[in-house]
Amino acid sequence: MSLRLKVSKVSNESLQNQIFEQVRTMILEETLKAGEPLPSTRMMSEQLGISRNTMTLAYERLEAEGYVDMRKSVGTFVALQVPGVATFTPAGEPPNVDDDGSAPCERIALRSDELKSQALVNASLRRLTADFWPGRPDPNSFPLKMWARLIANCLRSAGAALTEYRDPLGVRELRQAIVDHLRPTRGIMVDAEQVIIVGGSQGGLNLACRLLVTLGSSAFVESPCYQGAAYLFESFGAKLHPVHVDDNGIDVSKLPATQNAICYVTPSHQFPLGVTLSLDRRLELLAWATRTNSYIIEDDYDSDIRYRGAPIAALKALDRCERVIYVGTFSKSMGAGLRIGYVVMPATLFDAARHIKTLTNNGQPWLPQAALADFITNGSYDRHLRRIRHSYQARRETLLAALQKHFGGSTIVGDNAGMHLVWRMPDQLPPANVVEKIALKAGVGVYTLNSGGAVDFGVMRDSDRYLVLGFTAPSEREISIGISRLAAALRSGQSAGKAPRASL
Amino acid sequence: MSLRLKVSKVSNESLQNQIFEQVRTMILEETLKAGEPLPSTRMMSEQLGISRNTMTLAYERLEAEGYVDMRKSVGTFVALQVPGVATFTPAGEPPNVDDDGSAPCERIALRSDELKSQALVNASLRRLTADFWPGRPDPNSFPLKMWARLIANCLRSAGAALTEYRDPLGVRELRQAIVDHLRPTRGIMVDAEQVIIVGGSQGGLNLACRLLVTLGSSAFVESPCYQGAAYLFESFGAKLHPVHVDDNGIDVSKLPATQNAICYVTPSHQFPLGVTLSLDRRLELLAWATRTNSYIIEDDYDSDIRYRGAPIAALKALDRCERVIYVGTFSKSMGAGLRIGYVVMPATLFDAARHIKTLTNNGQPWLPQAALADFITNGSYDRHLRRIRHSYQARRETLLAALQKHFGGSTIVGDNAGMHLVWRMPDQLPPANVVEKIALKAGVGVYTLNSGGAVDFGVMRDSDRYLVLGFTAPSEREISIGISRLAAALRSGQSAGKAPRASL
Repeated sequence: MSLRLKVSKVSNESLQNQIFEQVRTMILEETLKAGEPLPSTRMMSEQLGISRNTMTLAYERLEAEGYVDMRKSVGTFVALQVPGVATFTPAGEPPNVDDDGSAPCERIALRSDELKSQALVNASLRRLTADFWPGRPDPNSFPLKMWARLIANCLRSAGAALTEYRDPLGVRELRQAIVDHLRPTRGIMVDAEQVIIVGGSQGGLNLACRLLVTLGSSAFVESPCYQGAAYLFESFGAKLHPVHVDDNGIDVSKLPATQNAICYVTPSHQFPLGVTLSLDRRLELLAWATRTNSYIIEDDYDSDIRYRGAPIAALKALDRCERVIYVGTFSKSMGAGLRIGYVVMPATLFDAARHIKTLTNNGQPWLPQAALADFITNGSYDRHLRRIRHSYQARRETLLAALQKHFGGSTIVGDNAGMHLVWRMPDQLPPANVVEKIALKAGVGVYTLNSGGAVDFGVMRDSDRYLVLGFTAPSEREISIGISRLAAALRSGQSAGKAPRASL
Repeated sequence: MSLRLKVSKVSNESLQNQIFEQVRTMILEETLKAGEPLPSTRMMSEQLGISRNTMTLAYERLEAEGYVDMRKSVGTFVALQVPGVATFTPAGEPPNVDDDGSAPCERIALRSDELKSQALVNASLRRLTADFWPGRPDPNSFPLKMWARLIANCLRSAGAALTEYRDPLGVRELRQAIVDHLRPTRGIMVDAEQVIIVGGSQGGLNLACRLLVTLGSSAFVESPCYQGAAYLFESFGAKLHPVHVDDNGIDVSKLPATQNAICYVTPSHQFPLGVTLSLDRRLELLAWATRTNSYIIEDDYDSDIRYRGAPIAALKALDRCERVIYVGTFSKSMGAGLRIGYVVMPATLFDAARHIKTLTNNGQPWLPQAALADFITNGSYDRHLRRIRHSYQARRETLLAALQKHFGGSTIVGDNAGMHLVWRMPDQLPPANVVEKIALKAGVGVYTLNSGGAVDFGVMRDSDRYLVLGFTAPSEREISIGISRLAAALRSGQSAGKAPRASL
């Protein structure tokens, strides 16, 4: 007797494993019946042209796992008691879930076809000469030398920090450095015990959802709103209620007296529109939360990046009734690759938050936290912020000048802050999604509100007039080239009758 | 008129901020009424003994935020239209949540007082001469030099990897390295696209829960079970059904025909008992999942650490019907401080998993992933595993010898594998929780099933006879000393009439 096995010596997989897998499958599918003798290792090794030792090792593993019996000087046999073979489902047979496609979905918090998630990576980046994708720090701005030195120092003094579990709330020194930074810059007076280190602001939003959002919860969000928040709330089964945003931020007067709701806001620099929530609305919003026993999630994603005046204090700085969950991140100021954000939790939610954070992932990696703590405490972070504010402001002005030069009197929405701006295109230009396509053909990345990371809920009157332009990653030169190419593309688009005249 | 302000020059907080905060509070609490004049910067700077410029900056920030009006050559006044002051709740007043304590909890997935999370850090570590806390790699085993070199290399070639968002599923090279490791060692044949990098196995379990567990879901778990799994399932509202574990692992015959359930298992090395799930039960378990349209979560937390024979192939290697979510981690083999684990997802769940992973935290930090990918592909990981297997086996034998010497014929539960063992104490010793206390007094950390990271559900007949002994962190010397001190402490405890005789 012999076995029909196919082995490849060039496969990544060892010969021993190839043999093991194939024989095991024959046994489980009962091509080889219980008690049936197997060819000798000698015969098989000759047949397959492999070393006898390899063949023996494969048989020994089959025996170790109970598939075969090796009887000394008698031979190798399919085990009599390979149990449960009958219940084994061969690969061919389609899994149950296909018989009843809906079944698994019922058990997913939402039907998976309803799940959406935020766009993070610009798929067409490679094809672009100039890309205005928002929220991307200048890669060259990253303080690589200092960072490498701090990382190396941390590693030298790591001790058991790499091998053992630590406080899931985060590295103590980093939590202290953060509160020392929040006090003067954001007016938030808390101590390190109230801070939880998370995986970017998204990790903070997720933590808030685990505490506050269950199926049917009411979530009031800005319209337009950051995708990563809106889609996350939906994934937890929340009902989304978009609330109009004007020049003073979210229109708090539109919030109904719904009890036990959440309200998600970006008060310092609304995403995407860039407006600041006015003081009176901040106070009204806090009063609403207190009245309705609701919680406010304050996403302060880019408040470290302002070009004029002191930033207005955070909503959390006014929070006397423990209604505000404050979410901050280093993804914009340092880089998203670090995946370091933080949450300031109301005392009333803190114990639950500590449990949920532990259950979610046992805390964040130690090394980047430790290095960042040193980076902030040795003053490098403040220096870094001054540097990037300076260069980002120059890029912003270059962008404004280019828009002025090529498109004349066009409008910028929002404050002199952040890493992107929203451009209200002149009325004679085609709709934003058309402009986005024309630009892409010309190797320039400009984005509608939706493709730029926002949800406009289709309720915004003139959303097709707006483009999101991130100006921090491209150089000043790329910015000028990008905008002039955009103008040229729109002109030729028009001359080819594809789009109306661009004002020049 | 003057202002009663207290400023401290030694505070971490700048004088300007101290003044700003105190005046803002007076205005919001209406100690200072709308339109009321404020003392001149000159007067205040003299009163407080600070520079006039500091005082001016504080006033200017108050004006920038709309709290005061500065009228040239007239003076500074509380803004007439500081709006919403009436709705501002002073610090004194208790927040709503206290009036109605239950309200916020309703909105937390579970009442926070029902939330539990796994014990990660040994609080009494500092007081211990020898600690047998389980799941701790030897800190000295960490390949620090190689790691530091790889980290430095990755940083040099980082490009935009630190500053930009990447694929939330993880670094491609690491996912490939993992599948190349899983194929020969675990018999799992998948490609990198099916792998998602997560924050340790806990992050993988959390991802599985977000997909599969909703309020009222049935979760079948091993009894005893790993805390981090049991408490996590409960936090998502699952009903836990403990299933007895014997020498062949979880007793699959006890699983009812509940539809759409999940079953959490640790087949390679049951936590905490250390037994291996037999092949027949593996096949029965897969058949059960297919019959009931349920999913199996396979937690393969320490399968890289075996001291004898080839590891039995993973349950996932037998999964022809896409019923198994396989969770692996580097927390045991490398270190928990890295927070790197991975999940092999059934194709049927993958799209939903990708969305949920993105919504949860936009993916894991880049640097440790990139370094680990290099560490595996350059062969260092296999060398590392051989090294630690060697030294851990020696420690295990030292522990067994010490137990034999001091306690004679005592029993070890489970296989020759992993980083801890479960010791069945001689009957004449006091109950495990008493032994734990006596040992702690003697500076030795030994742990009951519950304090060692497991839940025994109070259904195990003789759980008070078992101690969990992690043997990988303490040195062989510490192990010998620890066990002899334990024996001595139990003797003296007995002679002092506190505990029955320890057999010597």
